[in-house]
Amino acid sequence: MLNTNFEPCDFVLFGTLGDLARRKLLPSLYQLEKANLIHEGSQIIGVARTELSKDEYIKQVKDNIEKFTGETLCPDTWTRLENKLEYVKVDMVNPDSYQAFTSHVDPDRVMVCYFATPPSIFGDICRGLKAADIIDDTVRVVLEKPIGHDLASSKIINEQVAEYFNEKQIYRIDHYLGKETVLNLIALRFANSIFATNWDHNSIDHVQISVAESVGIEGRWGYFDDAGQMRDMVQNHLLQVLSLIAMEPPATLDADDIRDEKLKVLKALRPIDQSNFSTNTVRGQYIGGFVAGQEVPGYLEEPDANQASRTETFVAIKAEIDNWRWAGVPFYLRTGKRMPAKTSEVVIYFKRQPHNLFKDSFANLPPNKLVIRLQPDEGVEVTVMNKVPGLNTSGSMDLQKSQLNLSFSEAFSDERIADAYEKLLLEVMLGNQALFVRRDEVEQAWNWVDSIMAAWQSSNEPPEPYQAGTWGPVDSIGLLAKEGRSWFQQKNLKPKGK
Amino acid sequence: MLNTNFEPCDFVLFGTLGDLARRKLLPSLYQLEKANLIHEGSQIIGVARTELSKDEYIKQVKDNIEKFTGETLCPDTWTRLENKLEYVKVDMVNPDSYQAFTSHVDPDRVMVCYFATPPSIFGDICRGLKAADIIDDTVRVVLEKPIGHDLASSKIINEQVAEYFNEKQIYRIDHYLGKETVLNLIALRFANSIFATNWDHNSIDHVQISVAESVGIEGRWGYFDDAGQMRDMVQNHLLQVLSLIAMEPPATLDADDIRDEKLKVLKALRPIDQSNFSTNTVRGQYIGGFVAGQEVPGYLEEPDANQASRTETFVAIKAEIDNWRWAGVPFYLRTGKRMPAKTSEVVIYFKRQPHNLFKDSFANLPPNKLVIRLQPDEGVEVTVMNKVPGLNTSGSMDLQKSQLNLSFSEAFSDERIADAYEKLLLEVMLGNQALFVRRDEVEQAWNWVDSIMAAWQSSNEPPEPYQAGTWGPVDSIGLLAKEGRSWFQQKNLKPKGK
Repeated sequence: MLNTNFEPCDFVLFGTLGDLARRKLLPSLYQLEKANLIHEGSQIIGVARTELSKDEYIKQVKDNIEKFTGETLCPDTWTRLENKLEYVKVDMVNPDSYQAFTSHVDPDRVMVCYFATPPSIFGDICRGLKAADIIDDTVRVVLEKPIGHDLASSKIINEQVAEYFNEKQIYRIDHYLGKETVLNLIALRFANSIFATNWDHNSIDHVQISVAESVGIEGRWGYFDDAGQMRDMVQNHLLQVLSLIAMEPPATLDADDIRDEKLKVLKALRPIDQSNFSTNTVRGQYIGGFVAGQEVPGYLEEPDANQASRTETFVAIKAEIDNWRWAGVPFYLRTGKRMPAKTSEVVIYFKRQPHNLFKDSFANLPPNKLVIRLQPDEGVEVTVMNKVPGLNTSGSMDLQKSQLNLSFSEAFSDERIADAYEKLLLEVMLGNQALFVRRDEVEQAWNWVDSIMAAWQSSNEPPEPYQAGTWGPVDSIGLLAKEGRSWFQQKNLKPKGK
Repeated sequence: MLNTNFEPCDFVLFGTLGDLARRKLLPSLYQLEKANLIHEGSQIIGVARTELSKDEYIKQVKDNIEKFTGETLCPDTWTRLENKLEYVKVDMVNPDSYQAFTSHVDPDRVMVCYFATPPSIFGDICRGLKAADIIDDTVRVVLEKPIGHDLASSKIINEQVAEYFNEKQIYRIDHYLGKETVLNLIALRFANSIFATNWDHNSIDHVQISVAESVGIEGRWGYFDDAGQMRDMVQNHLLQVLSLIAMEPPATLDADDIRDEKLKVLKALRPIDQSNFSTNTVRGQYIGGFVAGQEVPGYLEEPDANQASRTETFVAIKAEIDNWRWAGVPFYLRTGKRMPAKTSEVVIYFKRQPHNLFKDSFANLPPNKLVIRLQPDEGVEVTVMNKVPGLNTSGSMDLQKSQLNLSFSEAFSDERIADAYEKLLLEVMLGNQALFVRRDEVEQAWNWVDSIMAAWQSSNEPPEPYQAGTWGPVDSIGLLAKEGRSWFQQKNLKPKGK
């Protein structure tokens, strides 16, 4: 039985010494503890293959939490968290090794197994857990991306896990689904008739989903080069956000109702293949340039670079959804590295007014926009046109654009916005799958992405170079410009290191 | 030729010693001068029948501006204004008397004649101007309300003025049309597709227009008792606001394009007569009570009261507009004296979401509302539903209402909002009739109001008593309640004296 209540659990963190656990998961567990959102009877069991005493482990956890939260730890919170921590050395590829922690888990409680390891050993971990005979259908497993490299390899990984766990037990993480503004998108769409009635091809001109990074590949050339921006960002984050924006209203907010609707969107994505990739996609690879005033090397000049690499560090796609709601409404996706700033946003461009009554003030009346900012400064804004207050002698009504802040930064400027991982870890502990990606979604997304990648490969053309510190190849501007549109440009963007 | 440019004019203020001129018009001229919106070549000629030297007049004007603006006068502004002032004694009912000011006006300039006098002498003033031979078709005349007491009497007044001036020269003041928020309504409706596409019976459930006064009749019992709240407020202000909200998009913002559309709305108002007044109207008369903690007398206990008076001090009406756009969308009008606070607002209630995905958080999802506050604190707000930021263990998405400020108080909190009269005086000087009421509108509004008044009279029932300091007779609550609705209630209303 899945447990939807706030109950104690054994939270087992495989790969607890790895990057993700250190940077994100353990700090998030600390924040949840601080907010009293971890049941007092829960345990957190770190698993790795390193020989480490419990005290040494606790010391490492504390150091990492301090480092990555940037906070002075609250003594009371830390004491509560420390008391929940355990460490077990397991050689994760060796099934015999798993006996080590049977004594640490309580078979009467829910066990949550977070696989913060390379996907190549997901199957090994499952096998080990089975060998130790500590799994049943109450266990939940959390899978980190990448789930495969393409449709075929993702099927293998999913199949390996499915041998031991059914789909109701599997929580595939896409941390974009834990972001406040992404969640608020669901509230905005379905709790407000002024948006709901405007949510289709009658009212919306196009949608932009843009995730810009200012960093390069951060010393992980080999890892990144195997993947590329398409697999690393588009297949998961951008398509997940796209499907939340585009989905039909689900009957309930239950996990499968939402995921059924998201899947329908992914299935309705018009295929991009050899016949149409050149007009619908742009891929780029950065060359040397300047980001925030600092000179940075090109992708092929990074340490360990293979000079012949054709891996894309930038993708722009005009996606189209072939269904009733979205006919004729392009969804423009864009993501890249070494761009001028770290900024992610979704922008819904509503249609222009059919007739302009305010020609004297605005020759082209700007359309309304709904801007969902994922970073920096998570928030939601609507751009509306207002009368300029006050008097003038022009004899016409002067208009101005105003930004309406729809959510956080005003009312909650003093409050910390929870990290996406906190939200998702909490949801796993509560047994709610709604914010996790179902197998068929992952596979459908790969299916669409694979077709584009295959078309690129067959074309035998290299990615277009773009200078580091710019918004990508000029063709990505052209992708919109040829249809009379342009990428949304945040005002007052301050470049940041990361 | 009408002059649409910023040009000098002779601004002649008939009744310059009267209440309206002292309280509103002269202070507004001062504010326009302060903002450099009066042409330096213009003159302001005060006219009254009192014998007064120019210096005495200037002294009075200065005192009144100081008193009613509540400001310390800016010396430079006052000097500029003072230099424009003239005073002419005219016995306004005697045509011979008008020769007095022919020497003061320049026949080459536009003359603006503001009739801040009782309408009973509008005809006399016109005749006098004619006798002095200083009118041609460049003269503009500004008429203050009340324009008549009913359709028949308004026709007489309009006819008297029409003998000397054509409709293009006549500027009928309804100061609600000069309010920033009312003007912004035009911008919001027609410059924003997110509102424009929601502006009909498909998206709007109903509209409320509510003008509450906390004052009583302020020592003017006889004057008020002749009129009553219907004639004093509904026939002009409330119906003007209603027609701006409800009108079809005009082809341009030119005066007659807008007024043609407003007229169509007034014509489409479903008649209320003996057959249906009892279900669609509520009239009340206040009895003694408390306003802001202070005991106040009933209407019939006010000084000079006629005990037998059945004049209404409160009106609530369910108005319906029989056209394509508004079928089935009631416009509830409400206005009264001695209510708990001085507050005027228009509230557009959008329809509820057809299906509630957030039952766990809100059993009844509140509808979106667009609130246009005319006073206090002019402003426009949209009520939307948001996700409550942050985490919880309930397993459901918690929602909260947020108010989005669409206009003034945030971005312009430090700026003074221009008084409606400033805007309207400026528009007259610029020769733009768009914000003034055309004769056919006035008459159409009387036509609708007369039918209701006749029905009331024939019923022989007295108005319902309501206690001073309440929101009117209980039946006015019932008017909405029987249809499952309720009057909008401003949060944090602070009762004010006026």
